[in-house]
Amino acid sequence: MLSKIRLLKFSVGFSFSSPPQKKYCIPEVVTFAAKLRSQMGSASYATSSGSSLLFRQLFEKESSTYTYLLADLSHPHKPALLVDPVDKTVDRDISLVKELGLNLIYAINTHVHADHVTGTGLLKSKVPGLKSIISKASNAKADLFVETGDKICFGDLFLEVRATPGHTQGCVTYVTGDGPTQPQPRMAFTGDALLIRGCGRTDFQGGSSEQLYKSVHSQIFTLPKDTFLYPAHDYKGFSVTTVGEEMHYNPRLTKDEETFKTIMANLNLSYPKMIDVAVPANMVCGLQDIESKGS
Amino acid sequence: MLSKIRLLKFSVGFSFSSPPQKKYCIPEVVTFAAKLRSQMGSASYATSSGSSLLFRQLFEKESSTYTYLLADLSHPHKPALLVDPVDKTVDRDISLVKELGLNLIYAINTHVHADHVTGTGLLKSKVPGLKSIISKASNAKADLFVETGDKICFGDLFLEVRATPGHTQGCVTYVTGDGPTQPQPRMAFTGDALLIRGCGRTDFQGGSSEQLYKSVHSQIFTLPKDTFLYPAHDYKGFSVTTVGEEMHYNPRLTKDEETFKTIMANLNLSYPKMIDVAVPANMVCGLQDIESKGS
Repeated sequence: MLSKIRLLKFSVGFSFSSPPQKKYCIPEVVTFAAKLRSQMGSASYATSSGSSLLFRQLFEKESSTYTYLLADLSHPHKPALLVDPVDKTVDRDISLVKELGLNLIYAINTHVHADHVTGTGLLKSKVPGLKSIISKASNAKADLFVETGDKICFGDLFLEVRATPGHTQGCVTYVTGDGPTQPQPRMAFTGDALLIRGCGRTDFQGGSSEQLYKSVHSQIFTLPKDTFLYPAHDYKGFSVTTVGEEMHYNPRLTKDEETFKTIMANLNLSYPKMIDVAVPANMVCGLQDIESKGS
Repeated sequence: MLSKIRLLKFSVGFSFSSPPQKKYCIPEVVTFAAKLRSQMGSASYATSSGSSLLFRQLFEKESSTYTYLLADLSHPHKPALLVDPVDKTVDRDISLVKELGLNLIYAINTHVHADHVTGTGLLKSKVPGLKSIISKASNAKADLFVETGDKICFGDLFLEVRATPGHTQGCVTYVTGDGPTQPQPRMAFTGDALLIRGCGRTDFQGGSSEQLYKSVHSQIFTLPKDTFLYPAHDYKGFSVTTVGEEMHYNPRLTKDEETFKTIMANLNLSYPKMIDVAVPANMVCGLQDIESKGS
């Protein structure tokens, strides 16, 4: 279980520590002037307390990347966040956010991606006040850094941070909160740590098959079996899985640790074609050119 | 409102009429020997009566086609159906159905597709007892034919059939049932009649922009605004929309009828590259070669 809870408070623009087990979330004060339209019944999940999660899964076809939009519709400001946005689809995502009357406050990465350029930097340049978030362990640039036990609040909803290194050293999984005020079943955004019937490679970016095995078994497979798992990619047209399904049918992670390590050591994958462009860019929110000019 | 309700009864293998407003559904008796595994918390939506809809959105990248898997998890046989399966992804779909412990009883098309070959014929050859369904107005071959007001039952859940011609003469939209025993919000599978911020072309297969406009406004925009709309395709990476969103933001169907007809008449789209292969095949469940040999 998580022993340390930190809260991310939007208005101060950085993360800070608070006493263990502190469980409230500070409502975001947002300045982005989105029109607060009446709710049009956007894809949403009501919690027993009346909080309402809007959830959209978005796809970038070239890199087969999933981006996730989440918002608290029951909060007057309709605060929203994007998980793993892609640079090429930033305009699509902003357009959707505006049409749905949301206030985009966070753009979050599960890790430093090697197969596409993140959209967080572009989003920051187009959405006033938006903050980028990545794990402290990634060593990448961002406005806010998170580690295991942190909570990322948006309205009355939040994501828990669980460190799941192994694909990269800085990989984290974001899990919707536990309890009656949070969506049920829970949802976990696993990045490349766990893919549907697969997992991310472990041969670059500080990857480690031993670490990945431990991460998935200790941080993801310990979630309730009905938890929906949403990965950063899918290459076969699947959109979601559950903890229960992966514990039964994941062809790699259902094996014992030694077999898993042998599988991962013998994948014989080719060199990631985007890695030399994507990783340096993603270390600085995807805006390498701008950053290198000092702006 | 629907004035005529017909029921599809799996065990007899054809559609039949019943008195108007007859609202019960006959539980399917299935022979397909899927193992009835314990529920693993697969993506599901509970209704207030305890019925539980498993729902999965699946994607075929080449034709950007969405296939939908629905099942009643609360029914002992876990009866399931696929909407708009694609021939190339039949093995993926069957594998998922088996892993989830479902009994696939129906493979349903929203219309005779022109951009990919349907998987219904292949599914029939691989899943004993499975029945294919298409609209009567399509003039295509299938085991069961549906028209406006029909209900397709799977366990205690059902899909309502609404004729929505205009993209083709035989297009229908399948809508989850209304009432406390059915999923809320409702979900509609619109085929190519309504796409996310778009619609299907109307210049082939008996298409008519006038008819499409009337179909969408009378059969889809009259659903509750929070109804989730799931189209047969998306080319920009969107996965779902709602009636409310499309009534506000669809760039074509928010216009008046005359403007819509002008837009559709001036799209200047190229000849559909798959139409000469796909349409003849889809008239016979996607198995043209087998059908032409009389098997």
